[in-house]
Amino acid sequence: MNENIGAEDLETIAFEIGVVVPKSSGNNKDGDETNDCIEVLVDEFRKAGLIIDRVVGLQNEFLRLGAPLKTLGQAAAELQLKKRTHIGVDLQFHWDEVEAYERQPDGSLFSWFERYCCYRHIIYGIVNTSTSTVILKSDGNEVHWEPGKPLLRTLESMGIVKEVFPVHDETKRKQLLRSWALNWWDFTVQPIDDICNYYGTKIASYFAFLGMYTRWMLFPAAFGLTVQLVDFGSLQLFVLSAFFISIISWAVLFFQFWKRKNSALLVRWQMNYPAVDNESKYLEGEWYQFQSPVELMKKQGADKTDKPRGKEAFQREEWLGHFMRFRNDAMIILSIICLQLPFELAFAHVYEVLRSDVSKFCLTAVYLFTIQYFNKIGGKISVKLVKYENNKNIERRADSWVYKVFGLYFMQSYIGIFYHALLHRNIMTLRQVLIQRLIISEVLENMLENSLPYLKYSFKKYRAVGNKRKREKGTSSEKTQYMSRVEKEYLKPDYSASIGEELEDGLFDDFLELALQFGMIMMFACAFPLGFAFATLNNITEIRTDALKLLAMLRRPIPRPDATIGAWLNIFQFLIVMSICTNCILLVCLYDHEGKWKISPGIAAILIMEHVLLLLKFVFSRIVPEEPAWIKANRMKNATHVHDMCSRQLLRSISGEKMHAELKKDE
Amino acid sequence: MNENIGAEDLETIAFEIGVVVPKSSGNNKDGDETNDCIEVLVDEFRKAGLIIDRVVGLQNEFLRLGAPLKTLGQAAAELQLKKRTHIGVDLQFHWDEVEAYERQPDGSLFSWFERYCCYRHIIYGIVNTSTSTVILKSDGNEVHWEPGKPLLRTLESMGIVKEVFPVHDETKRKQLLRSWALNWWDFTVQPIDDICNYYGTKIASYFAFLGMYTRWMLFPAAFGLTVQLVDFGSLQLFVLSAFFISIISWAVLFFQFWKRKNSALLVRWQMNYPAVDNESKYLEGEWYQFQSPVELMKKQGADKTDKPRGKEAFQREEWLGHFMRFRNDAMIILSIICLQLPFELAFAHVYEVLRSDVSKFCLTAVYLFTIQYFNKIGGKISVKLVKYENNKNIERRADSWVYKVFGLYFMQSYIGIFYHALLHRNIMTLRQVLIQRLIISEVLENMLENSLPYLKYSFKKYRAVGNKRKREKGTSSEKTQYMSRVEKEYLKPDYSASIGEELEDGLFDDFLELALQFGMIMMFACAFPLGFAFATLNNITEIRTDALKLLAMLRRPIPRPDATIGAWLNIFQFLIVMSICTNCILLVCLYDHEGKWKISPGIAAILIMEHVLLLLKFVFSRIVPEEPAWIKANRMKNATHVHDMCSRQLLRSISGEKMHAELKKDE
Repeated sequence: MNENIGAEDLETIAFEIGVVVPKSSGNNKDGDETNDCIEVLVDEFRKAGLIIDRVVGLQNEFLRLGAPLKTLGQAAAELQLKKRTHIGVDLQFHWDEVEAYERQPDGSLFSWFERYCCYRHIIYGIVNTSTSTVILKSDGNEVHWEPGKPLLRTLESMGIVKEVFPVHDETKRKQLLRSWALNWWDFTVQPIDDICNYYGTKIASYFAFLGMYTRWMLFPAAFGLTVQLVDFGSLQLFVLSAFFISIISWAVLFFQFWKRKNSALLVRWQMNYPAVDNESKYLEGEWYQFQSPVELMKKQGADKTDKPRGKEAFQREEWLGHFMRFRNDAMIILSIICLQLPFELAFAHVYEVLRSDVSKFCLTAVYLFTIQYFNKIGGKISVKLVKYENNKNIERRADSWVYKVFGLYFMQSYIGIFYHALLHRNIMTLRQVLIQRLIISEVLENMLENSLPYLKYSFKKYRAVGNKRKREKGTSSEKTQYMSRVEKEYLKPDYSASIGEELEDGLFDDFLELALQFGMIMMFACAFPLGFAFATLNNITEIRTDALKLLAMLRRPIPRPDATIGAWLNIFQFLIVMSICTNCILLVCLYDHEGKWKISPGIAAILIMEHVLLLLKFVFSRIVPEEPAWIKANRMKNATHVHDMCSRQLLRSISGEKMHAELKKDE
Repeated sequence: MNENIGAEDLETIAFEIGVVVPKSSGNNKDGDETNDCIEVLVDEFRKAGLIIDRVVGLQNEFLRLGAPLKTLGQAAAELQLKKRTHIGVDLQFHWDEVEAYERQPDGSLFSWFERYCCYRHIIYGIVNTSTSTVILKSDGNEVHWEPGKPLLRTLESMGIVKEVFPVHDETKRKQLLRSWALNWWDFTVQPIDDICNYYGTKIASYFAFLGMYTRWMLFPAAFGLTVQLVDFGSLQLFVLSAFFISIISWAVLFFQFWKRKNSALLVRWQMNYPAVDNESKYLEGEWYQFQSPVELMKKQGADKTDKPRGKEAFQREEWLGHFMRFRNDAMIILSIICLQLPFELAFAHVYEVLRSDVSKFCLTAVYLFTIQYFNKIGGKISVKLVKYENNKNIERRADSWVYKVFGLYFMQSYIGIFYHALLHRNIMTLRQVLIQRLIISEVLENMLENSLPYLKYSFKKYRAVGNKRKREKGTSSEKTQYMSRVEKEYLKPDYSASIGEELEDGLFDDFLELALQFGMIMMFACAFPLGFAFATLNNITEIRTDALKLLAMLRRPIPRPDATIGAWLNIFQFLIVMSICTNCILLVCLYDHEGKWKISPGIAAILIMEHVLLLLKFVFSRIVPEEPAWIKANRMKNATHVHDMCSRQLLRSISGEKMHAELKKDE
């Protein structure tokens, strides 16, 4: 425990970062303690203004780091972090004008993402300021801390610091558990502000979306239930068409209103509307941990030297970017059509042909195993392709990756169902397939998603305890059984994506599940109106199980700077357009029992051409941006220029105004 | 002539506003001259810093007003005009920091639109500052100039000041005539910057669009020529499909690139990208002459009092606006379908049934007369409807009107052709109809458009000279023949729209012609690929004839604040989507000679439903804005807040920097 800090401070300060170091073996306890690298690290942390709580676990020692507001504020000022002020404009943070900045909804000055950036800046900012290499010791080995090098990186590269990860804040976690995960009474109501404070904007926007989606879903669920259960007799086809039209309208309106809600959330969370435009360098550098710092510095240096680039350079870069993006997307689409489509069709066909249930089951098992592998490879290839694109920041890179990978999943999930639908032209068979898929995907996935992390955690814990026992045979067993909370967290799995974890976190899987479900119920709405009711039930449980997973099963996730649902918005929109077309095909196929409805190949060809052209129009409109890159760059430069020029003056007048107002209130 | 100003000043100062007053009859020459209202007006103008050139014409006296830069600058500062500064941000104009503002491409400080606003501010800003009513005399009548009332408005309401209109600047006009209207060698090259300086951004953007459109048109024109002239034998259908696909891609790409070009032009012309957002009050007040000033002041006052409106008020207003807009559009669409469609079909049918050419000719004449009347009524109704919508400013109001009126013209122009195409299913007949329409619309309209203003002008001139002769029988005839340039301009017609002149100017007719031509060649592209070549030829002449019309036939138009093609962009985009559908129908109808291609009514119904839903999706996405109004308002308020707070300081530092840079250069 840190002796310099009083008890009252400790109560208010949350420990939010954990550093895992090996347990000191006690051999050099009597030796030269000043040079032990752990001690030096702790000392440097203390010097940097952090408060440290050292917990000795079974196998490792854990340093829990907390920071007083002032330490964070100074780091924020060094990072040149921009913060929303009371007049609604983002200005650079200065610690002495702290009154000018708007507070978070819970009253704290910094958001979790900002705090995380500051923590990382502080702990990775401890460099050797002397001119000579400092030699540290670690269990007998020597560590060379070279001048100008950050200490933590040096220790990380030596394997002494095993991991740095955000840790849960127990009081807040328990509060959220009560008010959110276990609060089953209000079906879709969630404490979004608290989630945002605790998990950051990206995860909060996922839950806000999920909540709103579930709430809106009640309408089509009710309508679908009516259509399914009531027999309208000869009017059936008309009722179904009405249902089709109303769910399309519902979906379009929902996403428009979601965009509105999202922009309101952005205001509430003090983010700028096009969050992309105003992101400064530090976000990229900090969040993108996979890029080595040397590379990053080189990149930033390069950026600075060719800053006064001309229009031509911008345009060249812009078009090159578009070309790379286009090429990558074309490659993905081609390989999906040429490789995946035949495979999926072959599976669907063989499944149809097989008679015995056992062989069907075996085939499905083989298929499921294959597509897992297939998806992993697809994800890796996509990650590589995306690296060649010059996306503006890590979030846009992730979006680009999501589009590519979603293509795979899209084919996988729907092509088999379509094959069944078109082959049998029988509404009952199709319904069976859909029910199977919905139940399998939703129930099984939900179970897996929640049990897998727990199993992983249990296994790790079991092994850790076992190891400990092995080593410490003979000592008192009660001490061995005790496991500190931070150690438990260390053993818990990350919130990471099943594929492509370089670019995405666990939100990918959660959103993928939602999108596939949305596609399933929308694209086959006319065949299975009950699907909406299924999905509603599933989503209501999904909210709570996801919450539980985040709060109890996993480590606290690393916060992401984005506050929108990113690529998924466009994917949902695409699914709406697709569902217009597929429902029409379904209506034709399903209600043309006698095969009387004919269409000649000429007309069919022209119809396909029409649809391709309509698609082309909207793809082209997306590919060519309306505003050239150099204009955007210019505008951004100008805006920052102004704010930089009069930032100080503004800040002073804002905080002055505020104090004045407060004084008045007091009088 | 003004005696206070030296000859060197007069040379540099352009007279840009003309005020028409009655010629003094000479009766009260020896009487109390100080109270003659014309003399008082001239005196007040002079006091306001304007330079006046009095020209006595045949029937009226003309006051040509010019303003030294300083007078304009002071007016601009009073108007709180925002101008682009060297750091790329728009700040309020202050005359003493004039160095901080960016110059127009031709080196002048103010654009024509800004100058026009300043002139109006100056001349309508002359009020009676004393506490008592001043009694002025005019040809024996008494004019009561009440305290606080603007003099010019008083005189206008008495009919003494007949008109205030912008006059041509002879040197610039002649220069443009040489470099633009008569410069036939470079087919599509135009001096856009000069046009912008002389006519303002709106007209310049029309010509920029027309030029780019014509340049891009060369590709489909060449392709169309090939398709039409070369016989591809059995491959004809494939070539036609390829042509269809390529022109759709061409059109989509063209409009994307036009948007890019337009945003580059906005930067060049120092406008903000979403010109709508940043428009300040003065634009609306100044440009919208049809609203009485009292009303305007009331409105502004109201705006100010309820400025701290809440979210709810904004949302209520936003949805009410949407509802009104939706209701109006629905009314227009319904009345077009219920009233206009049967009428057009009836005409097309009767035309088909009639045998003799004479009766066909008569019918056409009656039809043309009727639709003129019909359009006028439609335009008036639309103007009334638009008044109930709360569009943000006059330009958005005009856009809303254009959408409504274009519906009328769309039906009028194409429904007859479609009737022919579907009835005959004969490509040759359709081609004949198309050629007729193209030639009639383009050649005749071009001729009319250019000769009508000239005839009007000639008639007015003839009458004016005749009247003069009648009155002044016996005086020397040579003096009577002389007509000053400003008087000639006064007799020239306005650049006004054929219908709905309350909301649009002559650009409406020019854009309408372009859009109808675009629709004609795109929607029937497969039937008549030669159309593109026709259109190209027409557009090349259109550029020059429109230029000639503006420079020689008409008064100088009143500048408009907008710098985009407004509603027409969406109309063109709509025509592209329409043309995808119509060309598909054409391909089916035209190449299915034997009627072998069948489609059953069930499939047809579902196809129609699909198209309606696709349309619905994109209409809904447009109707519900992505960002709530209160957020937009908030953001704008914040942005202006910052700029207002540190505007002075910024200006000083900018002009300081600039001087510093210049000093350095001199050294």
